[in-house]
Amino acid sequence: MTLPQSWTTPPPLPNAQTRDRARQRQGVLTKPPGSLGRLEELAITLAAQQGTDRPRADQVHIAVFAGDHGVCAEGISAFPQAVTGQMIANFASGGAAISVMARHLDATLEVVNLGTVTPIPPLDGVNNLQIAPGTANLAREDAMTGEQVARALTAGDDAAERAAAGGAQVFVGGDMGIGNTTSAAAMACALLGAAPSELAGPGTGLDAGGVSHKVAIIERALARHGSHRDPLSVLSSLGGLEIAALSGAILGCAARRIPVLVDGFIVSVAALVAVRQQPATRAWLHFSHRSGEPGHGQVLTALEAEPLLDLGMRLGEGSGAAVALPLLRSACALHNGMASFADAGVSNKEDHHG
Amino acid sequence: MTLPQSWTTPPPLPNAQTRDRARQRQGVLTKPPGSLGRLEELAITLAAQQGTDRPRADQVHIAVFAGDHGVCAEGISAFPQAVTGQMIANFASGGAAISVMARHLDATLEVVNLGTVTPIPPLDGVNNLQIAPGTANLAREDAMTGEQVARALTAGDDAAERAAAGGAQVFVGGDMGIGNTTSAAAMACALLGAAPSELAGPGTGLDAGGVSHKVAIIERALARHGSHRDPLSVLSSLGGLEIAALSGAILGCAARRIPVLVDGFIVSVAALVAVRQQPATRAWLHFSHRSGEPGHGQVLTALEAEPLLDLGMRLGEGSGAAVALPLLRSACALHNGMASFADAGVSNKEDHHG
Repeated sequence: MTLPQSWTTPPPLPNAQTRDRARQRQGVLTKPPGSLGRLEELAITLAAQQGTDRPRADQVHIAVFAGDHGVCAEGISAFPQAVTGQMIANFASGGAAISVMARHLDATLEVVNLGTVTPIPPLDGVNNLQIAPGTANLAREDAMTGEQVARALTAGDDAAERAAAGGAQVFVGGDMGIGNTTSAAAMACALLGAAPSELAGPGTGLDAGGVSHKVAIIERALARHGSHRDPLSVLSSLGGLEIAALSGAILGCAARRIPVLVDGFIVSVAALVAVRQQPATRAWLHFSHRSGEPGHGQVLTALEAEPLLDLGMRLGEGSGAAVALPLLRSACALHNGMASFADAGVSNKEDHHG
Repeated sequence: MTLPQSWTTPPPLPNAQTRDRARQRQGVLTKPPGSLGRLEELAITLAAQQGTDRPRADQVHIAVFAGDHGVCAEGISAFPQAVTGQMIANFASGGAAISVMARHLDATLEVVNLGTVTPIPPLDGVNNLQIAPGTANLAREDAMTGEQVARALTAGDDAAERAAAGGAQVFVGGDMGIGNTTSAAAMACALLGAAPSELAGPGTGLDAGGVSHKVAIIERALARHGSHRDPLSVLSSLGGLEIAALSGAILGCAARRIPVLVDGFIVSVAALVAVRQQPATRAWLHFSHRSGEPGHGQVLTALEAEPLLDLGMRLGEGSGAAVALPLLRSACALHNGMASFADAGVSNKEDHHG
């Protein structure tokens, strides 16, 4: 299978004309200049990305990508591996955090199963690809073959295509995969040249001893991996099926001019892969929240990202992005709905102070 | 006029039983314990405040209190004083930030004019009290008489009563008053024993010279005021009509068991007055955002408050609280809508790590 075009071709740039007009508009709305803080830049960036004078975040496409991790054999997670498949069923039946948020936001939710250890039965709302029964154990061998990476990237690109076909104004990607903070931390270490002790964290709930063991496992994986930093080899050697799909979805959204609201640690590592592969992808990303997972900070710094929220969330599934999404909606509502000084007959700032 | 009962009587406490049950529920939902971060505590606190197992933030009452400030004669604002009245008209006609957000949130919006320099004509949606043509110049004399303070506090308490009558699940208070960051900074200095240079900021847009002048004006006011720290004398000497009304509204909401989502600098100073007068009021407050106005930090610290958002907003009107309100709604949606581990057939955390 070949790599998707969004992997090999740079994405377009946002629209400079609508960006400039949005910036001008922010300057004449009935408020002191700059007083809406980061909501102003949010609206301006969305106007540029959507190529419109009236940006919107009403139509939201949420895609949760799930997959199992062979590295669970090393005992690096607080939850049993069966939870990945059980949570896929919970997504489908509406009881998971992202299911609740999708309803709450009136967003489209799709679940893509890239591959669980135990195959799952057919479920409504779940696209059951089962590329492999989870990855191989990255502490001992490459997590995925090149073919598996290509299929996972393509699955992400396909989700971006469905989002585009559905008229999505914002894309949210989520992850589910017991063990995936180990994979993501290993990937970030390889991409950033960082030490595992800086990037490994408690994930779903390891204690200090569990984190130390996780660090040792990642060190072993990196020793095997060597110094390769090219995105494809990092994905293949240290990645996860769902993380590769997220990278593919992010690149696919950028290629189709869809803004992406990036979730927490796992999705940020997938975004780092995407940006390393196609640097212009960065212009299509918003960052929703700073995860409670400690390694997130270095990944955000590498992406020059300052997230909107810092609420100590560390659930995954795209839940942090879903919780931040109303900030984009508020930014758009204010940008589109406020009166100008001229319209409202309000006096503008005068230089009579001092 | 006498002071409202909410000024003189301690408010009730939130419900400990519903708080405990909400905390238990958070522990069995299908997520790693604690992984929703601050959203968990938000839902638990709302359950306690509302005395229910299913907290909600759907019915929101927004009251914007407006008033003019005699200290504008000292040239401490970047905008002309006429803007207060012009913005009241903008609230009524729907073009202001808080008007847009009220529509966006499907919230009730009322505007209470405590008193503008130039009386305003009758406007739909504006409760036109006109207690005084703005305050007196606090740099030279007491801003308000005791009678004016009592009337403003009562106006706030009346708004809380209307919120209760309308079934409000959350109350948001907003401010409009050219010059009111000078009054609020002076009040905070008096209440906290802080220096004006620590608490005065650019407000709607002063440059460095403007801020220095503002500091000097506040120093003059504090020299006149002396070391009084009791809330009533601080309000009377250094306050604003709309700030007193906000204090009255916050106390009135606590008395009526309505959670308050506190906006930025001005409303936080009003909340500080309320908490100094009735300390148990603190249990009814949520803090929405950290203002770009630099003095906000010390006021938040004094209130032991860590706001939900830090987006550099500094607009007032209750706009920061309105932008944060969806976080309360998301916290409630997740708390009420997620499945438990038992319901969903998902394995809970096991101690098999390490």
